[in-house]
Amino acid sequence: MSGHGEGHAHRRFTVKAYRGESETQTGDELAVESPLEIRIEVGAGDRIERRSIVALRTPGSDVELAAGLLFTEGVVETPDDIAWIEPESDAIVSVRLRGDAERLPEARATFISSSCGACGKATIATLQARIRHPLRASTPSVAPETIHRLPESLRQAQPTFARTGGLHAAGLFDDRGDLLSLREDIGRHNALDKLIGAEFLAGRIPLAGRIVLMSGRTGFEIVQKAAMAGVPVLASVGAPSSLAVEIARGCGLTLLGFVRDGRFNAYADAGRVASPVGEVALR
Amino acid sequence: MSGHGEGHAHRRFTVKAYRGESETQTGDELAVESPLEIRIEVGAGDRIERRSIVALRTPGSDVELAAGLLFTEGVVETPDDIAWIEPESDAIVSVRLRGDAERLPEARATFISSSCGACGKATIATLQARIRHPLRASTPSVAPETIHRLPESLRQAQPTFARTGGLHAAGLFDDRGDLLSLREDIGRHNALDKLIGAEFLAGRIPLAGRIVLMSGRTGFEIVQKAAMAGVPVLASVGAPSSLAVEIARGCGLTLLGFVRDGRFNAYADAGRVASPVGEVALR
Repeated sequence: MSGHGEGHAHRRFTVKAYRGESETQTGDELAVESPLEIRIEVGAGDRIERRSIVALRTPGSDVELAAGLLFTEGVVETPDDIAWIEPESDAIVSVRLRGDAERLPEARATFISSSCGACGKATIATLQARIRHPLRASTPSVAPETIHRLPESLRQAQPTFARTGGLHAAGLFDDRGDLLSLREDIGRHNALDKLIGAEFLAGRIPLAGRIVLMSGRTGFEIVQKAAMAGVPVLASVGAPSSLAVEIARGCGLTLLGFVRDGRFNAYADAGRVASPVGEVALR
Repeated sequence: MSGHGEGHAHRRFTVKAYRGESETQTGDELAVESPLEIRIEVGAGDRIERRSIVALRTPGSDVELAAGLLFTEGVVETPDDIAWIEPESDAIVSVRLRGDAERLPEARATFISSSCGACGKATIATLQARIRHPLRASTPSVAPETIHRLPESLRQAQPTFARTGGLHAAGLFDDRGDLLSLREDIGRHNALDKLIGAEFLAGRIPLAGRIVLMSGRTGFEIVQKAAMAGVPVLASVGAPSSLAVEIARGCGLTLLGFVRDGRFNAYADAGRVASPVGEVALR
């Protein structure tokens, strides 16, 4: 697992603690949230376009976050689309893109904005048109007992959450449930962008045969990002939203929720989960 | 408490439930997430500007969400700035603003984008410049036992969460801890915008003498919105972020976190919390 700059993920604050009738001064570790400016430049001569995106994130893996965000939002498709990407300071990452100036989005969240008319179906259609790595038809590939083990693996590997109670985690697993990578952030979408960004920069997209587990809940954004990265199985400890389920069903992505305490629900395409009394017994 | 269209807040999905070795088909209620397009128009003659913002939200209180968002982002200051605001469909709210075309923001989240250079201090300075209702110096006004009771009041009044486990709640309380209003949404920022939007439309901004309790955690966005609305005491069941604490301290807002099980921490301006062995004993 590569390092992910966990050093600045939390900071100590002096607080007043109230317990029933008593009041004491103490210290408390909080998850750090701070703005990262992503400065993007593309084009040449008198056709240079510049855009700046600001993300509120937990410091660490900033380059991966920037790369992941550009990829999951559809601005870049392969690492070759990026001429260079580097941190300018603790709060700024600069990116130079290859190609022409049209590559740049109008603003952050153009993805959603572009599906005007604003119904779920338009959103799904827009997403499907953008996906470069559509999933293959599902075949049983993951045993339920593998899924059951994921949250404990994530928890054991997650350094910051226990201290602050304030960070989301995204974990990347192979189909036997071995943890390959983990990223944390105060925003769950950032945690996933960091995770996907690292794989993107290493040339490992699509994430075929992989499982992603999110520590929290799953909404539209999370499924969209997983679908862009070609993740076949997306699991979360919490609940999915209605739109998350619709998007997953539209993309043929296996969406699992409430993965905890030896239970989980399959909300979309359970075909990748091996039958408990079939493959599991044979393993 | 005014109604808040709870009818479409959840929807039933067919799922496969895995429990250890067994697999069954069942139904599960999920929180609804769907796009709302907010169509904004301002100006006259050949100086008409139109902008569209898309918010992913749980249906219900859509007009209040749109009004709250425009207010907490600094686009409008009083209800008089809105000529009319009305739903066009289940997925569209149209707003006509008074005043000139410059009123319109470039894009959503201009607030954060405008604090380029992207450090926490710039963010705080930008926010302070926008606040129309700065808080007065804090004096002891809320008893700790009042704070202790807030989460249970919120939970008892929250209709959807128990069913889906997927919605955030924002509750508005007076300084004796009586619940005045409650809004739910899959996005905590939306829940707060709905809550504030209702007060805004009713002409009750600033929210002096009020307490807002959030069911989840508190980040930058939540504190920013509370500060814009003049909320003196912001409490949450979960943890605040570092930036939330910095912003609250910069604005003189009382920020309480981990409000549960007879405990809480004051992260910023504890001056509004009455000393446990002072006012509380006298009550």
